[in-house]
Amino acid sequence: MIINDNFKIGDDGQLNVESIGCIDLADRYGTPLYVMSKSQLLNNIAVMKNQMEKSFSSSCIAYASKALSCKEIYRIIKDSDMSLDVASQGELATALSVDFPVERIYFHGNNKNEKDLKYALEASIGYIVIDNLSEIRLLERLTSVTGIRQKVLLRVKPGVEAHTHEYIRTGGVDSKFGLSKEKDELYPVLLEISNCKGIELVGLHCHIGSQIVDIEPYLVTADIMLELFARINREFSFELQELNLGGGFGIEYLESQTVPKTSDFIKCIGETIDELCKKYGIEVPKIVFEPGRSVVGSAGLTLYSVGNIKKVKDIRSYVAIDGSIADNIRFALYQSDYIFDIVDRVSETKDTSVAIAGRCCETGDLIAKDILIQEPKENDILSVYPTGAYNYSMASNYNRLPKPAMVLVDKDSVIEIIRRETIEDLLRFDL
Amino acid sequence: MIINDNFKIGDDGQLNVESIGCIDLADRYGTPLYVMSKSQLLNNIAVMKNQMEKSFSSSCIAYASKALSCKEIYRIIKDSDMSLDVASQGELATALSVDFPVERIYFHGNNKNEKDLKYALEASIGYIVIDNLSEIRLLERLTSVTGIRQKVLLRVKPGVEAHTHEYIRTGGVDSKFGLSKEKDELYPVLLEISNCKGIELVGLHCHIGSQIVDIEPYLVTADIMLELFARINREFSFELQELNLGGGFGIEYLESQTVPKTSDFIKCIGETIDELCKKYGIEVPKIVFEPGRSVVGSAGLTLYSVGNIKKVKDIRSYVAIDGSIADNIRFALYQSDYIFDIVDRVSETKDTSVAIAGRCCETGDLIAKDILIQEPKENDILSVYPTGAYNYSMASNYNRLPKPAMVLVDKDSVIEIIRRETIEDLLRFDL
Repeated sequence: MIINDNFKIGDDGQLNVESIGCIDLADRYGTPLYVMSKSQLLNNIAVMKNQMEKSFSSSCIAYASKALSCKEIYRIIKDSDMSLDVASQGELATALSVDFPVERIYFHGNNKNEKDLKYALEASIGYIVIDNLSEIRLLERLTSVTGIRQKVLLRVKPGVEAHTHEYIRTGGVDSKFGLSKEKDELYPVLLEISNCKGIELVGLHCHIGSQIVDIEPYLVTADIMLELFARINREFSFELQELNLGGGFGIEYLESQTVPKTSDFIKCIGETIDELCKKYGIEVPKIVFEPGRSVVGSAGLTLYSVGNIKKVKDIRSYVAIDGSIADNIRFALYQSDYIFDIVDRVSETKDTSVAIAGRCCETGDLIAKDILIQEPKENDILSVYPTGAYNYSMASNYNRLPKPAMVLVDKDSVIEIIRRETIEDLLRFDL
Repeated sequence: MIINDNFKIGDDGQLNVESIGCIDLADRYGTPLYVMSKSQLLNNIAVMKNQMEKSFSSSCIAYASKALSCKEIYRIIKDSDMSLDVASQGELATALSVDFPVERIYFHGNNKNEKDLKYALEASIGYIVIDNLSEIRLLERLTSVTGIRQKVLLRVKPGVEAHTHEYIRTGGVDSKFGLSKEKDELYPVLLEISNCKGIELVGLHCHIGSQIVDIEPYLVTADIMLELFARINREFSFELQELNLGGGFGIEYLESQTVPKTSDFIKCIGETIDELCKKYGIEVPKIVFEPGRSVVGSAGLTLYSVGNIKKVKDIRSYVAIDGSIADNIRFALYQSDYIFDIVDRVSETKDTSVAIAGRCCETGDLIAKDILIQEPKENDILSVYPTGAYNYSMASNYNRLPKPAMVLVDKDSVIEIIRRETIEDLLRFDL
């Protein structure tokens, strides 16, 4: 696998993350090990930021941190002058712990309760992305006590739902997220907000899906949202300033996949937004995107040690690894693809058909069922790429397995950014 | 929902766990909250043990602790004179921390590495259930240093795989677990074991699936395994004493489901084993079962607070709860059924069609998509039953949500057995 400049074959013939060999990483930090490339992460960010600046006179990127939430990633996002999307007190606390500028934080969620909102208000959070009418009433009650006037966006269902290679124009309404865009449902809500003293509606938000590989659904969505945006500013007393079109930009999980580059997504959406704003007779508002996967996904891989290799006659070989669905549940949950390599034989032909079996006591504990890799042998180090998004963040302790460590490679240096759990850590909640 | 004596309507009209009202539990311990009934747990155990004693002259039940692993559950298993099945150092450490008698512990796993086996040997564990040839060689190497002669069972694929209402007689061979039962593959392994000084083969092990609702596949399996058991004792120098037929007994997840009682599974399998032993001309060996779900599953429910209720016109209502796939991933992963109730209106008709939506920022974060419950309103307490198995044990911190607490109700008393994670707990691994 030679995906890009940061994950390539080194002079020693093994897979390197930047200038560090994967065998070295496994030796020094043990396996399973999550490995992030700082250069790849910064590159992903730079590409997005450059295109945003080219495409929009006012814009921002809010990192959707549910993809990978930890202090060091938040520090990098902060130092990149990006904004941050958090969806819980835990994610917000992580941001506060690294002094993330609160005015750049968006608080998300379809079911924020009183504690969540209080926590966000006490932190003087920049924006709350309101999901429903109950939340408006709760927020108005809480702000009436504190006297804060809280900036909010309103999450609206555009009626577009995009999945991989298809999208459904009406499907998006059957969702737990956001408010209906239909006049008879939305206008009473807007009217109620306009009477709230503690709520300052500054923009609209939508989100149409995850791992989207077509640009078209975004263009349809932009049209729906800009028409609504213009109409609300015309018919209500609000002065909406920003349109947050959510995230969902897909990334390549297989060498054979072709997904538009994030910059292409942004460029194309930008051109369409220019036209649409002319059509609706408005200035182009501040445009916000909330990418998660496309920020961190391609910057990470996971290293595993290969255990026994079980040849089931006439069927397949099971290659056992020291990880499992506990550290990567995406294959079990979404049948997700990944690129697999034996790290010191990357140049060899991938001609061996195998399943990658985790170490949990569960038949469904597989990371892949039918893939081709270089011929594996016991004690090999296997890399699974890209795992920067939704691997650590969804990790469990199933079978009482400790969560792996995560290291960040920056050229020829490595730092541990999440420490490996210990057995003692696992037992500390038991009474 | 009035499932049994331990989950029923109390004098106050609300759902009680034993003698404690669910509203009280939610008030005292917060939500989401895992609640276990000790009486139900002890009852599940007693039913199994009684039937085992009736059906077999020598037998044991090893609790498959991956279903729910924590100190207090292990204490109960220990005090019930049961054995324990562990699948990791973490589960074994939990057992050791409550002084679980090591001679009653079985160590499982398809990919035990050197550290795992060393840990088990140092603990003087009762049995290692060997999965593959590499493990045999590793164990022989490790025991040659210590001089220990380790009791082991050999995990064999019976070639039967059972799922819910069907089973496949050949499907079971396509599994990451165990050794082939075919002579040309198994006999060389047995020969190798017979030459191992540090390994004492005392029995065979198999496991045919999870949440099995038919008895028939067990009977087919018993035949295959007893024939093999008799043949090995006849043709090799081993003196196999025990046959471990694994777990997998299903439980009822819906009021409309009819699953054989665990005692029926055991009774019927016992009768068949008697006949089969006569057929193969052997004494009935010690029979071991390894139930997990059928021990703890029906002893637990989860309490959630209801947040906003979102009516999507002409489609469905989304009832938002303060839990998510982070504390119950079984619907997302297996489309699992549960019984849902508004705890203080249990007697009312379930006539409201809803989806139960978690609080994670993910469209797939549902606990149910299309169920009937009593008409819900905000701040209701919702119970989800049965969640004793594979809920806490598979819990993650997705969206940086803290794992819920777990309490154990014993008649009119309650103790916390797993403490609720805090936000500080979530951040402590970040560097």
